[in-house]
Amino acid sequence: MGVVVPIEEGRSDPEASLNDLVALVARDMERVNACILSRTGSEVEMIPEVAQHLIASGGKRLRPILTLAAADLCGYRAGDGAVKLAASVEFMHTATLLHDDVVDESDMRRGRVAARIKWGNEASVLVGDFLLGQAFRMMVEVGSLRALDILSAAATVIAEGEVMQLTAAKNTETSEDEYLAVIRAKTAELFAAACEVGPVLAERPRAEQAACRSYGMNLGIAFQLVDDVLDYGGASASLGKNVGDDFREGKITLPIVLAFRRGSDEERGFWRRTLERGEVEAGDLDAALAILRRHRALEDTTERARHYGAMARDALALFPNGPTKSALLQVVDFCIARAH
Amino acid sequence: MGVVVPIEEGRSDPEASLNDLVALVARDMERVNACILSRTGSEVEMIPEVAQHLIASGGKRLRPILTLAAADLCGYRAGDGAVKLAASVEFMHTATLLHDDVVDESDMRRGRVAARIKWGNEASVLVGDFLLGQAFRMMVEVGSLRALDILSAAATVIAEGEVMQLTAAKNTETSEDEYLAVIRAKTAELFAAACEVGPVLAERPRAEQAACRSYGMNLGIAFQLVDDVLDYGGASASLGKNVGDDFREGKITLPIVLAFRRGSDEERGFWRRTLERGEVEAGDLDAALAILRRHRALEDTTERARHYGAMARDALALFPNGPTKSALLQVVDFCIARAH
Repeated sequence: MGVVVPIEEGRSDPEASLNDLVALVARDMERVNACILSRTGSEVEMIPEVAQHLIASGGKRLRPILTLAAADLCGYRAGDGAVKLAASVEFMHTATLLHDDVVDESDMRRGRVAARIKWGNEASVLVGDFLLGQAFRMMVEVGSLRALDILSAAATVIAEGEVMQLTAAKNTETSEDEYLAVIRAKTAELFAAACEVGPVLAERPRAEQAACRSYGMNLGIAFQLVDDVLDYGGASASLGKNVGDDFREGKITLPIVLAFRRGSDEERGFWRRTLERGEVEAGDLDAALAILRRHRALEDTTERARHYGAMARDALALFPNGPTKSALLQVVDFCIARAH
Repeated sequence: MGVVVPIEEGRSDPEASLNDLVALVARDMERVNACILSRTGSEVEMIPEVAQHLIASGGKRLRPILTLAAADLCGYRAGDGAVKLAASVEFMHTATLLHDDVVDESDMRRGRVAARIKWGNEASVLVGDFLLGQAFRMMVEVGSLRALDILSAAATVIAEGEVMQLTAAKNTETSEDEYLAVIRAKTAELFAAACEVGPVLAERPRAEQAACRSYGMNLGIAFQLVDDVLDYGGASASLGKNVGDDFREGKITLPIVLAFRRGSDEERGFWRRTLERGEVEAGDLDAALAILRRHRALEDTTERARHYGAMARDALALFPNGPTKSALLQVVDFCIARAH
């Protein structure tokens, strides 16, 4: 565990900023969890095994929480539509993780061995497909074509973002804008969709739909940038992800983009050797961390995250104050505070 | 090319049985093809490249043809719903192929090098996800919740079938019923869904929906069984699939199920060594073919296919005679005649 640095007076534990929101949607989240459990069921034994390995491994379920909260913010009270869409969003996320692990050849996920190591790449690809299918079935049950439109578009954009990343991967010349386009698509789009379907279900005006979407989008970008920082940072051990995974996989993330641009020719040579050509030697991760520190790349990535966090907050301005809005604003703190 | 054995008087070329149907839906298929082309577009260059590599490689597009024909059979004339659903069905099929090649570690597909060899497993997984996302977007545009329900359920069932196959794979004890459950799910379900959405769009009664579904399901089973035969048969070269692929991959298909049950202890030992343990030596494929011949396993698999073909025909009995119905009946001939 790294040292926790408070970023706002009175807040020292990042998880604390999430507590209000978690408490607020706790009852509906129980129904989401029951729904997730029942919808991973299949007579084909391997499917619930693989699905629940990942689902039960204690993600924060931030995305379905956001769906419930956004619906609540917009006064949605009618039935179980939000619960089913929240479960759909978590299934889409889980499917992405299963496929990502195959694509990235990852061995670990959330501090446990990745499903693909335990059951093989085949099972990870196919159970991902199964969960995506189940996600759509639940959406269809809810019956909102507009919500279906938003979430199916998100599924496409996420895949596009992953392919973009594949193309941009190992290219140290990637610009900040290009990198942002990737994470908007592969991470932030699902946050945006998760939030947008709330007001859609509640049949609120377009302006509120756009506000919730914008909140989710900017929160998602901040979230990913902080993840990038964590991958080189002290606190990451608590995520169960080894420090330096991105480095070893040759992933170009914003800290690298910044350090590469700000660096010397010699440093650029270092990034090209380690990230583009994958020639990583003992001591290279320490050397990478030293370069990142020298150029304040991690601090400035966190600064960028703060910027998107501020946009997320502003997006909610049009909603009247209240406990849900206040809890959603605190989630922004949570996302940023994780960086420290 | 193998020797073509006519199974009905006056028909010697299997492709000929498909001509009427192809001609019947030709105009709408042009729109489906345009739709497919436009919906594989993406600013991320690799996506259209990978998608079109497979899509342009000359599959028969049997599934979208069936969607158009079933809609036509049921008198659907209103707008482009059937065209979009047909394109969705083809996208679902293409996504499955991309993922299958990764799962099966195949090198070839439709006589061309598999996308995963050219662009990697990562791209195949992700472009498959992209196409699945696009398929759902098109369905959403059509706006029929019932069609969405049918096709999203099919997506789930297909993935389930693939996982079932993964579990059953290399198990020579697989029973005929178990094997049928696999191919119902992984192959026939999409044929069934492709046909069922036709009468759904045309808002025809449940009985017609069920009839079209049954036609598609049984045709799909027959189609897969004949594929299994082709994998051990002379005519397969024209499919661009090497004879013996299933054997080398240790796939348990119906010919094997039949030969295993009918065989001697020594023969069972042979199947266990080659298929379960994957210890394949020079001459084993010839030995396998000899055993299959000895037990009439390929002929009897074709007989089973004929049985499902007959059910497919009977399913259409409630529709009045006409050119579309007649063309759909001929497709059954086409599927069976391929075996020879």
